[in-house]
Amino acid sequence: MNVTVRGKNRPYRTVTFDAPRNHIRLIEQRLLPHTFKIVAPRTFRETATAIHNMTVRGAGAIGATAAYGLAQGARAFRGSNRRKFSSHVETVYTVLKAARPTAVDPVNAMNEIRRVMAQGKSVAEQQAIALAAAEEFANADVQHCARIGWHGAKLIRNGMKILTHCNAGWLAFVDVGSATAPMYAAQAAGKKFHVFCDETRPRSQGATLTAWELAQQGVAHEIIADNAAGHLMQRGEIDLVIVGSDRTLGRTGEVANKIGTYAKAVLAKRHEIPFYVAIPLSTIDWNLRRGRDIPIEERHENEVLGAWGVTPSPKSKVHGLKSGKRVYVRVANPTSGARNPGFDVTPAELITGIITPVGIFQPTELWPRRRELGFTG
Amino acid sequence: MNVTVRGKNRPYRTVTFDAPRNHIRLIEQRLLPHTFKIVAPRTFRETATAIHNMTVRGAGAIGATAAYGLAQGARAFRGSNRRKFSSHVETVYTVLKAARPTAVDPVNAMNEIRRVMAQGKSVAEQQAIALAAAEEFANADVQHCARIGWHGAKLIRNGMKILTHCNAGWLAFVDVGSATAPMYAAQAAGKKFHVFCDETRPRSQGATLTAWELAQQGVAHEIIADNAAGHLMQRGEIDLVIVGSDRTLGRTGEVANKIGTYAKAVLAKRHEIPFYVAIPLSTIDWNLRRGRDIPIEERHENEVLGAWGVTPSPKSKVHGLKSGKRVYVRVANPTSGARNPGFDVTPAELITGIITPVGIFQPTELWPRRRELGFTG
Repeated sequence: MNVTVRGKNRPYRTVTFDAPRNHIRLIEQRLLPHTFKIVAPRTFRETATAIHNMTVRGAGAIGATAAYGLAQGARAFRGSNRRKFSSHVETVYTVLKAARPTAVDPVNAMNEIRRVMAQGKSVAEQQAIALAAAEEFANADVQHCARIGWHGAKLIRNGMKILTHCNAGWLAFVDVGSATAPMYAAQAAGKKFHVFCDETRPRSQGATLTAWELAQQGVAHEIIADNAAGHLMQRGEIDLVIVGSDRTLGRTGEVANKIGTYAKAVLAKRHEIPFYVAIPLSTIDWNLRRGRDIPIEERHENEVLGAWGVTPSPKSKVHGLKSGKRVYVRVANPTSGARNPGFDVTPAELITGIITPVGIFQPTELWPRRRELGFTG
Repeated sequence: MNVTVRGKNRPYRTVTFDAPRNHIRLIEQRLLPHTFKIVAPRTFRETATAIHNMTVRGAGAIGATAAYGLAQGARAFRGSNRRKFSSHVETVYTVLKAARPTAVDPVNAMNEIRRVMAQGKSVAEQQAIALAAAEEFANADVQHCARIGWHGAKLIRNGMKILTHCNAGWLAFVDVGSATAPMYAAQAAGKKFHVFCDETRPRSQGATLTAWELAQQGVAHEIIADNAAGHLMQRGEIDLVIVGSDRTLGRTGEVANKIGTYAKAVLAKRHEIPFYVAIPLSTIDWNLRRGRDIPIEERHENEVLGAWGVTPSPKSKVHGLKSGKRVYVRVANPTSGARNPGFDVTPAELITGIITPVGIFQPTELWPRRRELGFTG
């Protein structure tokens, strides 16, 4: 999507590849929204670090980064010995896979790259195929998101107020995003609407990443505390909810997503507000049989006990502190601990529809229509 | 309640009066939980400032502060001219009332003090009565909270996990608190239980004040993001919810409380978890006929867009920043705005019971049993 940096407005993707230098180029997401910076991991090990430390995050984005990382590692090999090359690629694969051990997208992406690489007859040919396959993977991610946008945009009517949670935007993919895709498509079609971004504590991806994205694209929006959505629904100020998903169960239609999604779905149901989940097909888990069995990551308590931010500018009317320094502040009582589940599971009965690249489905339709949705088991 | 300050454990009230010096003594709540400090407004004007700037906050606490403030102002009068004294007291009343113009507790408290003062036959006698009446008002607040505790404690069984929202603790009253009163009473009775404190964005009163209170009293607790309660309920980890209220409609049983309360009530209903509201009788509004008519304060967007905290200690393993400095950090995208409703309204159908100093009532019982509950209209 387009980003204005130092007065210049130009298109960026979350993840791209600089073939002459064999560098990956990533938007440094840990500095957003306060600083826009491109970082360029120069080796596959640096790429693995960028995935591990969440310089790049979001299912589609880390899938593409791993795909490019595999190509990057393969292309760094010098020589023509195919056995040594294979062993080297195996190392690259293992290092990149270990960067986010619970994520499934990097593994799926790299398996696909390796599958097509095997068709190459020499090291040089395999290296070229690896890069072409990684580019294809990244472009496919963008296409899938764009198709989510085409299907989802028809849900958005002029004047609507839309709630979203966390960041399922273009920063979480190579471009366009999942939950944001219908918004960008509706905007391109000239529709006017307003987005409420849940701030999404404890990591505040809504207040930081989604709000930044929407501001860059000129989409009207306001941030709200996660506590405020119920009140706004009660007062008739929300017409539609669209969120993303980290894992959607193909057999039951249950959706695992960022903590707090479930509460919004329960509130939406009570107020008869349509609640949609936007996903690429890679997010569907066709194996698991019960939402209860989705492992819920318990994250570090410091996320709940404090916040990351920058001290305000000297011009700010709020507080005359030295500006721009990024700090972690402890908000909570110093002698208290916290629980920090990272995700929750929303049952199918609360979900109006699932927006996919191939159309909008009721959650219970996923399994009967699994062939259309890419199930190959 | 007891507080440990510099190794010494001793009882404190949120608001007390130093009669020889004619000072009010307040816990400086804006510095909690990071610094425990007593401030002593020396004049009624300083007392009004302390109410206005939220050094002291919470319905019962500002009611008692205003009562003491009226006595403080009255006692500062020199002379025996009753007409001049009356005019002076009128000024004191007006200044204290203006400190939090929408709050009803200070007005009710001061009207009561003035009513009994009128029985005094000289300036000196009226001054003495003012102080005695203010002390009585403060003690009555403590008694009401203690009775909430007696009635509410029977809801708490060994091993229970209890959710609370915001701070309806002893810092919001003269002592004991409303939502926390049953917890302290159950603890005194030897029961073991665990409290989850919603952090309560955007002002984080749960993470700061409630967590500090519970830690000081040795009540087992953990802070959670406001987003996490739904997940914990889904997994069977919450047995009981107790919250406070800023205004409860006697005619309908609707409860206005800190933003986010409504969502917790909706979730509790879905999971068949008892949801109780603990209130002193002064919180009941016998006039208003519809919850929709309760004015909902829209607060400054900076509360949502950032957070107040301290930079961590140098020993902290998290980040090696200079410690202890209290700062506001901007978390959100700098070019985005926010909506910030401060309260929401929970309908009677979601409330299992209302814990009062005179017993536990179903919300729809308030009106038919209004005489027991102090309605004098």
